[in-house]
Amino acid sequence: MKRASIVSIGNELLSGQTVDTNAAYLSENMLTIGIPVVSSYTVGDDTDSIIRSFNLASSDADLVLATGGLGPTDDNLTRQAFANFLGTELQLQKELLQKIQDFFDSRNRRMSAKNKIQAYIPAGAKALANNLGTAPGIMADVEGKLLIALPGVPSEMRKMFEESVLPELHGLAGRQAIVIRKLRCFGTGESNIAELLGPLMERGRKPLINCTAKHGVITLHIIATAKDKTQAQQMAEKDEDLLRNILGELVYGTGDQTLGEVVGEELAQQKKTISVAESCTGGYLAKLLTDIPGASRYFTHGWITYSNSAKTSELGVPPDLIEEYGAVSYRIAQAMAQGAKKRAAATFAIGITGIAGPTGGSERKPAGLVYISIDSDNRCETKRFVFSGGRDTIRLRAAQTALNMLRLKLWD
Amino acid sequence: MKRASIVSIGNELLSGQTVDTNAAYLSENMLTIGIPVVSSYTVGDDTDSIIRSFNLASSDADLVLATGGLGPTDDNLTRQAFANFLGTELQLQKELLQKIQDFFDSRNRRMSAKNKIQAYIPAGAKALANNLGTAPGIMADVEGKLLIALPGVPSEMRKMFEESVLPELHGLAGRQAIVIRKLRCFGTGESNIAELLGPLMERGRKPLINCTAKHGVITLHIIATAKDKTQAQQMAEKDEDLLRNILGELVYGTGDQTLGEVVGEELAQQKKTISVAESCTGGYLAKLLTDIPGASRYFTHGWITYSNSAKTSELGVPPDLIEEYGAVSYRIAQAMAQGAKKRAAATFAIGITGIAGPTGGSERKPAGLVYISIDSDNRCETKRFVFSGGRDTIRLRAAQTALNMLRLKLWD
Repeated sequence: MKRASIVSIGNELLSGQTVDTNAAYLSENMLTIGIPVVSSYTVGDDTDSIIRSFNLASSDADLVLATGGLGPTDDNLTRQAFANFLGTELQLQKELLQKIQDFFDSRNRRMSAKNKIQAYIPAGAKALANNLGTAPGIMADVEGKLLIALPGVPSEMRKMFEESVLPELHGLAGRQAIVIRKLRCFGTGESNIAELLGPLMERGRKPLINCTAKHGVITLHIIATAKDKTQAQQMAEKDEDLLRNILGELVYGTGDQTLGEVVGEELAQQKKTISVAESCTGGYLAKLLTDIPGASRYFTHGWITYSNSAKTSELGVPPDLIEEYGAVSYRIAQAMAQGAKKRAAATFAIGITGIAGPTGGSERKPAGLVYISIDSDNRCETKRFVFSGGRDTIRLRAAQTALNMLRLKLWD
Repeated sequence: MKRASIVSIGNELLSGQTVDTNAAYLSENMLTIGIPVVSSYTVGDDTDSIIRSFNLASSDADLVLATGGLGPTDDNLTRQAFANFLGTELQLQKELLQKIQDFFDSRNRRMSAKNKIQAYIPAGAKALANNLGTAPGIMADVEGKLLIALPGVPSEMRKMFEESVLPELHGLAGRQAIVIRKLRCFGTGESNIAELLGPLMERGRKPLINCTAKHGVITLHIIATAKDKTQAQQMAEKDEDLLRNILGELVYGTGDQTLGEVVGEELAQQKKTISVAESCTGGYLAKLLTDIPGASRYFTHGWITYSNSAKTSELGVPPDLIEEYGAVSYRIAQAMAQGAKKRAAATFAIGITGIAGPTGGSERKPAGLVYISIDSDNRCETKRFVFSGGRDTIRLRAAQTALNMLRLKLWD
């Protein structure tokens, strides 16, 4: 089977100013075409280090994908390192220069002198078109190994990878077919899932089942390898059924689906609407719901009633109820949901009140305490949670948990 | 000067399932104590690959920081690879086992049998306490080089790094002092900043000035190296003044400050309040404002009026105005801001309406078209923007731009 290695270039990566999302993107996309990434190197803006990493990576793999260091400023050295690695010189490509000029012209912007350097590529290499920016990619065959340099800006890198690199690579993919199915779960922890699945998650097993966790979402990856795609597909599907049987309602979706997407799709299909009344999450729940294109089909109203008076004036929460139970309480979450449902005339309304922290907590009501209430025509369901972590984690976890409560209600 | 190298361990990194944020965190924190990270390796859950990367990293640097592969399940092999690298065996540490048992007891959770493996560490190595999870870290001196293995879960890794690793490292930092100042800018592009600064951004220059861009925020890093900290500090401060003079109002803050923080601080200091009325951003602006602890000092009300009827019922936008100009228009943004200001009785109110895309656009009103209006006692200012990019980018850029308009108003 063919293998790939990744080289990420840029001082901003080694100084921690930038998180390398390109490596993850490339790794995932290479794996889906059956060329696993076996190693990944990160180096700074230094010609020698880049050349050394090209050597290490090409000894690990048949294909080296490098990102970064193709910009117009002086700290961009990938172009030169690529030429040194090939043992050639940089050459001006008039066609490229024209393209870069056109890019600026079409945007009514002046091309800076610095951008001219981007029209130079190593002799013997091929330029890859950049339809979003000015830095062309570079591709060359070096003693039977393929070396490809892509821009570091994620949007440009992704577009170039999809449009110019992938079509070249399909021929490279080995005879082994890989099919990956992802099952997304919410509502329990990683170790509990591992116990539920037991021997299914053993390392030698085929298909391999891996588990990752992020923001409370547990993703199970079923990785099936077989001689042909149909066979791999069947193996993956059989395992998916197995896992779904064991995990039941914990599985909320597949692939890269978010809770917001799944809930949104279900609302749209059932022709139901949702409105939200948020305090501690401050708009986060509404944002997750409206992250989805077409959210206006089901999302109508949102209130962020951060102050007590806003809870009263906008949602009709009685001031004496706040006085008696405190703004962060079962009763207020319920009154917020009921007020929002009534005012928006939606099928469902969610009320959230809590203490996002790190300040504002007390022994009786610590940071992380959140009440979530869902009001529907039949009944109003309210739950109490204590989330741990920092402010961001608590807010996101509260919003995700609200979406999950709504999902289970929609699936009822 | 001492140098560090990073090893990130986990199949989920090589398959792209997880983005490696640990490497960026460690790099940034090492640099601030004067130990630059010179290389970074990513390997899968494979004992031989981990050992090979330990060898490569320890030949690059004096200190190797590894993350990941310390969990309880069978795919966690860092513990074993660490022992092999040292040439020793894993040993059960009763104290560690007790700590792990206590961790579960205090949370009223049952300890799974798998967790016992986390009480084993290589003979001759030292365990590092994990106060957030169950996986202890491991530290050992190998022929004068320090090898440290930390958990892969970012929150656990960070806490362990700060509490157990940093205190051990301060002695290692070389004689060279490094001072980094960051200036955060908003309102123009990276290449325009580069042109404004010209030779100040040349590579050989001391202090070195680097530029990174993310979500429209341009960060200038002034990296001053000198014999002692005072001298480096002075060099950095001098450059900061220079840059501020050239860039003026484009500079909104320093360090890791977000626009939300800067605006929030300014509102709190001026004892002013803000409310928001959002359509296309769907709560994103409110979220950015309430990301900041203590936001209740200035943030009172938010409305997400996604539907036309919500714009009318909640903010008093006249239906015939929507009929005449369309929901995405200068007049509606203005009416939303004015309605929100009146209803919330806040010092400022922001109205945002636009087309977040990718669907819903037309030739006259394309995806990315956004109107932002700020109403204050003196006047109502409304601007039209066309942002490019995907839905997420357009929504975030719109919310950030609204914050920036508010900042400039507060600075007036």
